[in-house]
Amino acid sequence: MLFMAEMTVRIPHDLDPQVAEKLKANEKALSQQLQREGKWRHLWRVAGKYANVSIFDVRDNDELHTLLMSLPLYPYMEISVTALAQHSSAIAQN
Amino acid sequence: MLFMAEMTVRIPHDLDPQVAEKLKANEKALSQQLQREGKWRHLWRVAGKYANVSIFDVRDNDELHTLLMSLPLYPYMEISVTALAQHSSAIAQN
Amino acid sequence: MLFMAEMTVRIPHDLDPQVAEKLKANEKALSQQLQREGKWRHLWRVAGKYANVSIFDVRDNDELHTLLMSLPLYPYMEISVTALAQHSSAIAQN
Amino acid sequence: MLFMAEMTVRIPHDLDPQVAEKLKANEKALSQQLQREGKWRHLWRVAGKYANVSIFDVRDNDELHTLLMSLPLYPYMEISVTALAQHSSAIAQN
Amino acid sequence: MLFMAEMTVRIPHDLDPQVAEKLKANEKALSQQLQREGKWRHLWRVAGKYANVSIFDVRDNDELHTLLMSLPLYPYMEISVTALAQHSSAIAQN
Amino acid sequence: MLFMAEMTVRIPHDLDPQVAEKLKANEKALSQQLQREGKWRHLWRVAGKYANVSIFDVRDNDELHTLLMSLPLYPYMEISVTALAQHSSAIAQN
Amino acid sequence: MLFMAEMTVRIPHDLDPQVAEKLKANEKALSQQLQREGKWRHLWRVAGKYANVSIFDVRDNDELHTLLMSLPLYPYMEISVTALAQHSSAIAQN
Amino acid sequence: MLFMAEMTVRIPHDLDPQVAEKLKANEKALSQQLQREGKWRHLWRVAGKYANVSIFDVRDNDELHTLLMSLPLYPYMEISVTALAQHSSAIAQN
Amino acid sequence: MLFMAEMTVRIPHDLDPQVAEKLKANEKALSQQLQREGKWRHLWRVAGKYANVSIFDVRDNDELHTLLMSLPLYPYMEISVTALAQHSSAIAQN
Amino acid sequence: MLFMAEMTVRIPHDLDPQVAEKLKANEKALSQQLQREGKWRHLWRVAGKYANVSIFDVRDNDELHTLLMSLPLYPYMEISVTALAQHSSAIAQN
Repeated sequence: MLFMAEMTVRIPHDLDPQVAEKLKANEKALSQQLQREGKWRHLWRVAGKYANVSIFDVRDNDELHTLLMSLPLYPYMEISVTALAQHSSAIAQN
Repeated sequence: MLFMAEMTVRIPHDLDPQVAEKLKANEKALSQQLQREGKWRHLWRVAGKYANVSIFDVRDNDELHTLLMSLPLYPYMEISVTALAQHSSAIAQN
Repeated sequence: MLFMAEMTVRIPHDLDPQVAEKLKANEKALSQQLQREGKWRHLWRVAGKYANVSIFDVRDNDELHTLLMSLPLYPYMEISVTALAQHSSAIAQN
Repeated sequence: MLFMAEMTVRIPHDLDPQVAEKLKANEKALSQQLQREGKWRHLWRVAGKYANVSIFDVRDNDELHTLLMSLPLYPYMEISVTALAQHSSAIAQN
Repeated sequence: MLFMAEMTVRIPHDLDPQVAEKLKANEKALSQQLQREGKWRHLWRVAGKYANVSIFDVRDNDELHTLLMSLPLYPYMEISVTALAQHSSAIAQN
Repeated sequence: MLFMAEMTVRIPHDLDPQVAEKLKANEKALSQQLQREGKWRHLWRVAGKYANVSIFDVRDNDELHTLLMSLPLYPYMEISVTALAQHSSAIAQN
Repeated sequence: MLFMAEMTVRIPHDLDPQVAEKLKANEKALSQQLQREGKWRHLWRVAGKYANVSIFDVRDNDELHTLLMSLPLYPYMEISVTALAQHSSAIAQN
Repeated sequence: MLFMAEMTVRIPHDLDPQVAEKLKANEKALSQQLQREGKWRHLWRVAGKYANVSIFDVRDNDELHTLLMSLPLYPYMEISVTALAQHSSAIAQN
Repeated sequence: MLFMAEMTVRIPHDLDPQVAEKLKANEKALSQQLQREGKWRHLWRVAGKYANVSIFDVRDNDELHTLLMSLPLYPYMEISVTALAQHSSAIAQN
Repeated sequence: MLFMAEMTVRIPHDLDPQVAEKLKANEKALSQQLQREGKWRHLWRVAGKYANVSIFDVRDNDELHTLLMSLPLYPYMEISVTALAQHSSAIAQN
């Protein structure tokens, strides 16, 4: 089941830079693991912003929420979720 | 080069139903042709809305605009375009 | 799996009143059938508005979209969908 | 009498983590007590957000306000309240 | 129990003027009856707009909704409702 | 002459609690004095928010501004003012 | 007492052009009369829009509302009113 | 003196197609004349929208307004104007 | 050439009060000098807000920007600029 | 390929002034180099704001994002990107 998540990162400017770097490295590692597992199906950068557009393929809403909450940058992200359904004109299955 | 287009369709309720059906059929045919050509890479329905989230793979902004303008439902759609770049954590190339 | 749908009805003032009454009667009948089936778990009126807050219990996003699209008033409703997950403080299971 | 409350929690990142944990634990305890008493009738997590959708069953506006103000996380929450009425198509009484 | 209702009237410009005048006259009559009954406690015009700010004193959310729905101009009004509670600094009881 | 003022209080979480308590106590005292003088005609709490809806009866815009600026919590409030006129359907004079 | 009124005119495209021209001519005549009387103190065009920024000098809110409602284009205008007070740095009296 | 104008065109779907085509042809002719005269310095299409971003070089606000009002599509456009000043890092003069 | 500037002041609550007072005194002095020079033609307080509505009479956009940037409170103000043109119904010249 | 980028700078008031000055000087130097290289084709100041409107001429979305991210003030800017296409009425090529 697919969901689009639009994530905007806002790291406070007074956060310890080392803490921030650690969070970003952990975020990257977990993100790539989830991509390899097929759960984080697409990850695109929004040009000009510290933001991304992502497509998740999860079993249900609970798995989506648990996954997003597990992201190291979660406390500094504003996330908006859109439930995606099969489009009747799409030639591929979701 | 990838772009996200979020399209919302608003067909006036006093449009001739036959005209509307014809437009939708043409839209579907062209949409599927563009998907097969690889230009309309993804097409998802937004659950609960007459709207979609689409990913286009085009040569440049001009090709994107020409393609969107050629859609039969274009006069009845509100489209918002987001330029997508390669995300440094993505394991796939755009 | 639960979703909240907030639906606002906007029937054009020049729609034939008999057509409108027919749509509303069919909407009510289908709504009550879906409630009895357990798919439309809650239905509340927003005080002062021709709008409702609803909770749907469906298998997935596709079932939600198909269900909402099948509503007779669908062409005249603006619907916003929120995916709901289990809250860790809730004493009931979703 | 039912009200929907949509609550978004924004804990300042420089709040002492122990204070924050204490607040969350107290919030959970009070929330579960109010659920058991039937006043906090439903509690759902908004997928992807530190936010919830809640349904309260209270005697009147004053009881609702007193209850919400008593929540330990109240100073860090943005709450929006919607008064709910009986929907004429609902098969259950509010 | 008090509620503020902010009502904005938007009568379509192609509505039959006689129908509109009839609706307004009926609205005025009902409004004054509800004021005399003490249910429509205050009614103020928003300067420069075809809009009002009203305070209703009703038993519960259902009575509020039924009352607002009964207004002749209801189909042409956009209403936003705010639940009001006793303010701890107020010298009068709600 | 009547004005509605909608006031939302946002006290920074790092303000000294004693200072905050002092401000609130002074605000309450002044508010009650202004109510007794008939200038602050109504004061209602917005359910679920640290906010109020108020009706002021003042000589002119200048008196309104001077009065609002004199409130101890003024630096921490966001205030929106609406000029109210006599409604032709109101049975009471403003 | 001064008020700023920001007025945006939206004449429906299917309004009889002769009716529209008559309304505009009457609006202009009344506007100039009110300017000469000193009640409509300033009238500026917003560059690029069918809109104006106006300053009214009236006795009270009621006079302002009555004046605005008397404008021939009133049914086709969206007006937003801002109450203006004496600025402590202004060298002129309002 | 430079201004950015963002123009969105909304032609009503029930406007006579011949009238619309005539308006568009006249708009194009005038637009190209103004470009050749150096007053309409830049004209770009917003990808995916019936909208443009334009830079005008005019003597003053009045010339800008007169120019925009003279456009054949003016009654069907929503225009937002931004006054541009010389940027201290720009290597070119405005 | 006239511009409306709407300025909202937001002084951070942790700014040194003496610094703030100095800034305000300098702002007042400069504001009054500019008013006497005829460049800051009108200055009104928005009732209930730390905000003003101002009309500037300047040679061009550059002079406007330079003037606004020179204000001592500029770093703490949010300013929105509207270009004003001669209104065809105005009896006075801008 | 052209993009409009609207950039608003928000430097926190508690950032070390020397750090801020260094960032601004570096921003200016890089900005001018990019202008000379033809990549930052236009740079205009928004009158009254610490903001600019810019036109970039880049190979693709990735080059745009890399360029914007390389700006020294990037962490303190809010940037919104608009993809521009050739306008059919433009006399110049993009």
